[in-house]
Amino acid sequence: MKPPIEFWFDFISPFGYFASLRIDGLAAAYGRQTDWTSMLLGVSVNKVMGIPPVIDLPLKGEYLVRDAQRYARQHGVPYRRSSPHPTSSPLLAGRCFAWARTSHPREARALAAALFRRYFVDIEDIGAEAVVSAALQDAGLDPLEWQDALRGGAPAKLLRGNVERAIARGVFGSPFFFADGEPFFGVEKLPVLDAWLQSGGW
Amino acid sequence: MKPPIEFWFDFISPFGYFASLRIDGLAAAYGRQTDWTSMLLGVSVNKVMGIPPVIDLPLKGEYLVRDAQRYARQHGVPYRRSSPHPTSSPLLAGRCFAWARTSHPREARALAAALFRRYFVDIEDIGAEAVVSAALQDAGLDPLEWQDALRGGAPAKLLRGNVERAIARGVFGSPFFFADGEPFFGVEKLPVLDAWLQSGGW
Repeated sequence: MKPPIEFWFDFISPFGYFASLRIDGLAAAYGRQTDWTSMLLGVSVNKVMGIPPVIDLPLKGEYLVRDAQRYARQHGVPYRRSSPHPTSSPLLAGRCFAWARTSHPREARALAAALFRRYFVDIEDIGAEAVVSAALQDAGLDPLEWQDALRGGAPAKLLRGNVERAIARGVFGSPFFFADGEPFFGVEKLPVLDAWLQSGGW
Repeated sequence: MKPPIEFWFDFISPFGYFASLRIDGLAAAYGRQTDWTSMLLGVSVNKVMGIPPVIDLPLKGEYLVRDAQRYARQHGVPYRRSSPHPTSSPLLAGRCFAWARTSHPREARALAAALFRRYFVDIEDIGAEAVVSAALQDAGLDPLEWQDALRGGAPAKLLRGNVERAIARGVFGSPFFFADGEPFFGVEKLPVLDAWLQSGGW
């Protein structure tokens, strides 16, 4: 059996959210599983690159605002944020998913979906403990178990590990994918990833 | 008649070269003309953005090298550079195209094609006067007329104007397109531009 398609994302990336709605279906069409990993771009990867978060860049930042809204209209995706500029810290959500991915793999996708929906559709602060707890309940998980884990420090360590692996693998943006080691960056690369899987590469 | 689809590019951008092979056909399918404009990213636009050329960025630079080679294989495009890292200055080629665009609009596309081919396929230095002269001859233009114009200063002024307009319009990368004012960045956005033209926007 072939290894899963890797999907790397930052919870405050709208394009990561958009990709989360497509990647499992795309992979399944080729009989492939997926492996989702949360990481931190703005506060970690961009340090390695020596640049500010892309959304803060002159010229490019404004384009991304427009592009995210346009993508949502084109694909009929619920998206109520008027700007992709982060209004929450992705730290808590990133830690929570990193923990669920290893402790509750069956519920982890539903947790990610709840966090993305609460941030981009319900416009809630996923940096707040109450919102993360509600997302855990959406996914059928126990907020008390999570809070115990968080106090123990394991989620922070898992997310830190994700970020270190991301940098080592050359991940510089969200969403980022690997298919059999081949890297693909950006939601607009999904058709290219699709063609790659269909043809077996080129 | 609708205005032309705008295509902005930097001669040392491999993705601009790739886009140059598709944009006219894409536009023609919707009865649209195109308007090609040369500009300078690395030495001008990136100053406004406060970042180094993307090809020099850690993590992202390596990905772009791989992505350019992969794109060429996928689309069967001649591409013999082993790296998209610039080995020529785009200044002379950019000036020459800016001049031809206004002085010899019928031959300007052929000139751009010759410059792109010489840089990315024949691996010549398009920052060298002899190579630009040869490209002019490829396109049926007179190198002596160009050299006179260059000495007069008009080509430099035209390219500077292009760069200023690019920045004012929010152009931050190559290739960059506008369809009826709507911006699209990157060669992987061509299918989105296609869908936009087909549907009339969304």
